[in-house]
Amino acid sequence: MKRSFASDNYAGALPEMLEAIASANALHARSYGNDEYTTEAKKEFERHFGSDIEVTFVFNGTGANVLGIGTTTQSFNAILCADISHMYVDESTAPERFTGCRLYALPTNAEGKLEPETIRKKIIRIGDEHHPQISVLSIAQPTEYGTLYSIEELKAIKTVLQEHGLLLHMDGARLFNAKVGLGCSFEEMTKAAGVDILSVGGTKVGLLFGEAIVFFQKSLAKTLRFRQKQSMQLPSKMRFISAQFDRLLKEDLGTKSATHSNRMAQLLYAKLSAFSEINITKPVQTNAVFAILPKAWIAPLQEVVPFYIWNEQTNEVRLMCAFDTTEEDIELFVKKIEELRG
Amino acid sequence: MKRSFASDNYAGALPEMLEAIASANALHARSYGNDEYTTEAKKEFERHFGSDIEVTFVFNGTGANVLGIGTTTQSFNAILCADISHMYVDESTAPERFTGCRLYALPTNAEGKLEPETIRKKIIRIGDEHHPQISVLSIAQPTEYGTLYSIEELKAIKTVLQEHGLLLHMDGARLFNAKVGLGCSFEEMTKAAGVDILSVGGTKVGLLFGEAIVFFQKSLAKTLRFRQKQSMQLPSKMRFISAQFDRLLKEDLGTKSATHSNRMAQLLYAKLSAFSEINITKPVQTNAVFAILPKAWIAPLQEVVPFYIWNEQTNEVRLMCAFDTTEEDIELFVKKIEELRG
Amino acid sequence: MKRSFASDNYAGALPEMLEAIASANALHARSYGNDEYTTEAKKEFERHFGSDIEVTFVFNGTGANVLGIGTTTQSFNAILCADISHMYVDESTAPERFTGCRLYALPTNAEGKLEPETIRKKIIRIGDEHHPQISVLSIAQPTEYGTLYSIEELKAIKTVLQEHGLLLHMDGARLFNAKVGLGCSFEEMTKAAGVDILSVGGTKVGLLFGEAIVFFQKSLAKTLRFRQKQSMQLPSKMRFISAQFDRLLKEDLGTKSATHSNRMAQLLYAKLSAFSEINITKPVQTNAVFAILPKAWIAPLQEVVPFYIWNEQTNEVRLMCAFDTTEEDIELFVKKIEELRG
Amino acid sequence: MKRSFASDNYAGALPEMLEAIASANALHARSYGNDEYTTEAKKEFERHFGSDIEVTFVFNGTGANVLGIGTTTQSFNAILCADISHMYVDESTAPERFTGCRLYALPTNAEGKLEPETIRKKIIRIGDEHHPQISVLSIAQPTEYGTLYSIEELKAIKTVLQEHGLLLHMDGARLFNAKVGLGCSFEEMTKAAGVDILSVGGTKVGLLFGEAIVFFQKSLAKTLRFRQKQSMQLPSKMRFISAQFDRLLKEDLGTKSATHSNRMAQLLYAKLSAFSEINITKPVQTNAVFAILPKAWIAPLQEVVPFYIWNEQTNEVRLMCAFDTTEEDIELFVKKIEELRG
Repeated sequence: MKRSFASDNYAGALPEMLEAIASANALHARSYGNDEYTTEAKKEFERHFGSDIEVTFVFNGTGANVLGIGTTTQSFNAILCADISHMYVDESTAPERFTGCRLYALPTNAEGKLEPETIRKKIIRIGDEHHPQISVLSIAQPTEYGTLYSIEELKAIKTVLQEHGLLLHMDGARLFNAKVGLGCSFEEMTKAAGVDILSVGGTKVGLLFGEAIVFFQKSLAKTLRFRQKQSMQLPSKMRFISAQFDRLLKEDLGTKSATHSNRMAQLLYAKLSAFSEINITKPVQTNAVFAILPKAWIAPLQEVVPFYIWNEQTNEVRLMCAFDTTEEDIELFVKKIEELRG
Repeated sequence: MKRSFASDNYAGALPEMLEAIASANALHARSYGNDEYTTEAKKEFERHFGSDIEVTFVFNGTGANVLGIGTTTQSFNAILCADISHMYVDESTAPERFTGCRLYALPTNAEGKLEPETIRKKIIRIGDEHHPQISVLSIAQPTEYGTLYSIEELKAIKTVLQEHGLLLHMDGARLFNAKVGLGCSFEEMTKAAGVDILSVGGTKVGLLFGEAIVFFQKSLAKTLRFRQKQSMQLPSKMRFISAQFDRLLKEDLGTKSATHSNRMAQLLYAKLSAFSEINITKPVQTNAVFAILPKAWIAPLQEVVPFYIWNEQTNEVRLMCAFDTTEEDIELFVKKIEELRG
Repeated sequence: MKRSFASDNYAGALPEMLEAIASANALHARSYGNDEYTTEAKKEFERHFGSDIEVTFVFNGTGANVLGIGTTTQSFNAILCADISHMYVDESTAPERFTGCRLYALPTNAEGKLEPETIRKKIIRIGDEHHPQISVLSIAQPTEYGTLYSIEELKAIKTVLQEHGLLLHMDGARLFNAKVGLGCSFEEMTKAAGVDILSVGGTKVGLLFGEAIVFFQKSLAKTLRFRQKQSMQLPSKMRFISAQFDRLLKEDLGTKSATHSNRMAQLLYAKLSAFSEINITKPVQTNAVFAILPKAWIAPLQEVVPFYIWNEQTNEVRLMCAFDTTEEDIELFVKKIEELRG
Repeated sequence: MKRSFASDNYAGALPEMLEAIASANALHARSYGNDEYTTEAKKEFERHFGSDIEVTFVFNGTGANVLGIGTTTQSFNAILCADISHMYVDESTAPERFTGCRLYALPTNAEGKLEPETIRKKIIRIGDEHHPQISVLSIAQPTEYGTLYSIEELKAIKTVLQEHGLLLHMDGARLFNAKVGLGCSFEEMTKAAGVDILSVGGTKVGLLFGEAIVFFQKSLAKTLRFRQKQSMQLPSKMRFISAQFDRLLKEDLGTKSATHSNRMAQLLYAKLSAFSEINITKPVQTNAVFAILPKAWIAPLQEVVPFYIWNEQTNEVRLMCAFDTTEEDIELFVKKIEELRG
């Protein structure tokens, strides 16, 4: 299948990830994370995210979100999230099934971000046993629209949460793109900004498979190992995930990969902006471009470089750039547009 | 870490698996199993296990067991299994948490196998809403002792189950070793013997990661896709599992790998049998050797080639051979024994 | 504690319910519903709701809603309901915990009712395993505002549901009030209008305790007995609930009780309407009156006859009439209003 | 239906319970336990069970056991219980469904009691995330055989539990019979003996319905209210349960009722012992008599006074005496035996 703008998990893996796995494949290693590769990778996480954290590696993004949050909740709790969030619209009922909790979906602003007031208004009936008890907010960074919460916005949200003793979970399925977009360190954008639980996406940035969960307070993770096993997210050959993350962080490959995909999105954005028929609908801050296209163009353009329609009613489409998107892909796409304009 | 007899998931991956992944890494592919590698791998499963089956690929063995069984049960059901089974003693409460069901652990015979009468006696209070309603039996093939149910034994168990409309699940975490041990085809030992749901282990036979689930009646798998997503076992880049299984089956690598590890176990068995101080406790039918060693020998032998003590009281140890166990490993072990005998 | 307009479950039980229990208390009876009182009560339900139904009795309203719906759902399903519904705002996370399902809360119109278009727009991504699969809609009749869906409105909703094979659940915590308000038979307002699963409230109409669940297709209730036991809602001395419902239906006590409370609400409504300072905010169709009062009046009025503030922002209050509300209670209330007007 | 020896929940309610309910039925009362009857009943519990306890009232015995235990467990825990326990054999999969935990059923001695060594041997693999983590032991007092743990036996069990930080739950479905049998106070047999969580049966001692849960450490009950609501065990008109328990304890009705049923069991035991054909199989310490009868006698005796066969293989039957069993019932039974002897 040819490269596309459909999804960054249509892309394969970075060649370095295959190398990292091949290296970790020498001789035997202890299973379930009791191996040296995992120890080493955790050190890399401490270097980037700060010390005194708890890190583990899981199979997939839903696992990271559900296990990360579910380690801190009880079954009578509720989880706040954005109504466009992946956890709410694309993870089946995994959150309810595993945590027992209610999900409260909140409306976002035009940029796909939750505002402090929206959150504050939903924090109601605390201590009332008839009502689900909100205990955590989950936000995606970048959002599903590819936009970014600034550090200040994160802190403003954290202030609301702290007033009620709630935790902040960040779904960082594309965290490297967020880091590049914000131009700051991982620690600044997570720990220092008040994040308590973090999902770090590996698959979308070029791993074969594998995601990480970071707890910024070790006390939140006291039951993690038990819940990880119980939730079927404890890899027996964990070293094959750890070794990838270790390499990704050690050689800044994640950042390089995201720098490239963000840059490709900027290029695509710049090219598309030139066409009066095309309306860019969200700020382009990471590796996604959202645009309204003339309806007649959509099918022929999908033939050239496949992509998804985000909103059938408005003809808004989502164009995702990946670590392997090339300038040629973009040229091809633009050339087809020019052809369609006649 | 050096090679050991500790566990076959201490071993790494077959080099061909890395090659298969590298091949599947060319260009983009659809996610969540809608890719050509997965289609191809499923055809291989049909070739080996029979047509009209439903196959999917998941991350790990607990996932395969729990999702396979859980797709067919309701929360008021009970699952019969052996009291030594991995699902009962090594998968935390994942089965209860995901299925809601009771697990009834049955005693096995000296070879670690469940006997038809043991099963029959436990099938009680059918239709009584006060009692968990048994709906499925799970057996491991090979068993945790490395022993094998013969085709006749499987059919005798199936007869008991059919009398009460119960399903037969087979945990084939080491199914390739069982196949080699039985000397028959996959179809003969599963579909033809009455298996309804099958977990096929990949990790222990040399995959980087990945297991398969096979349903021998498609009607049992009607809700599979939904439950797979919900149970956090639907890999986004499924092709990287499929491609490994495809290669494993196409080139008979699994069978070769198991032939080797079974042969190593026979060799080890033959060597150990020669020592009057050592008592082999189970028939050696696949890649495991269980033996009672003089207590004083255990620690020094573990120094040479690590292994697990199975029973602290009796000094029974488990020696697992893997696809990469060498004759030298065995020589080393035997040499140390000779040294210890003085 | 004196009588109030706070909640119809602050009221006690009808004296006839105590008599019914005393009668059922002679000698021994089989437990768990295998008694003659239960058989008799079910016949009464068939007389009122139509034949070929499945009926059972449970402890409380949350149990009725959750067990009724949960008997028909699978854990990857979603349940549609109104965002003001009791099930959504006052039953903790019991629905999620027991069913595993997502709850999707829909906005209601000004009268607290769900409109067909609102429902239709939410029925999306059918067959997509990444998204919760909607399988049932739950509506309250009367609604939380005491308003009523007309038979035509019910049928219009049913039409939307049938297009997608979804079920209709009716939360009839105050079903007798609805029946009196609609002026039709139980069968007309439930079975004939397309209801599949029904919770029938007993507690709020004058039972000591006890609710009923009715399935209008027996096939939906195939696993009911098992799920009822498992959900801790199978009363051992079920006859003490059955005997109350039997008497309630046989002597039309529920209807009499609801006729009275609805009439009291009309009287209260008529009296309050006369005051220009008071704004009645919802149509008074059953036993609830919603009104905006001058803020300064609220506390002194609560002193006289207690009631709840529905909306702190707007000073809207909810005044519930029960089977034991008297004209004197209303006079007392109105007298205090006159006093407050000065 | 005539009186029987079948089950003590075939009996109805004590007349005083109906009176207590009638008294609580005057005027309105706050719902969900915020009423004066509940406050009063809790004081009675403190008087009998000791101060600094947490008490709540629920609908049924399964609810009491599952909620009591489930308030203290996490989903990766395991619960130890007797293999003959009601919770294990007669409460469907309610414990697994609600708690997520594994149930480990232990064999009892000939008197149906768990011995400290049996318990100790099962407490394994602490801290190992692959294995369910045992956190609580549940015992029934009296046992399902009607036998009693002595205070010393309880303390010996508690010692084992304390070594590993495990909790002790007591299923007191027939706690009043146990108290009478032991001849001590409630506090001596529960709090002082090391019980942490207690289910107190009301239904079997003469309540219309209703059970209590007592936590002897308030810290264990921190999330109780939330879990009670979520588990559908929070009665809206809780006062109708509280008022019964209040009266039961205040006037020592429970003790009187149990004194009578225990005495009837002794009488029955004495009479049956006289027949050489009958073999009494368990010590008669409360209100149950277990006996092996000649097979030919069983059906004709059931005609006279119904009862259950406990073991079809051995012709062992269970004869339960209730608060309303009379000497005439026993005479009738004995007369029939004499007739059958010919």
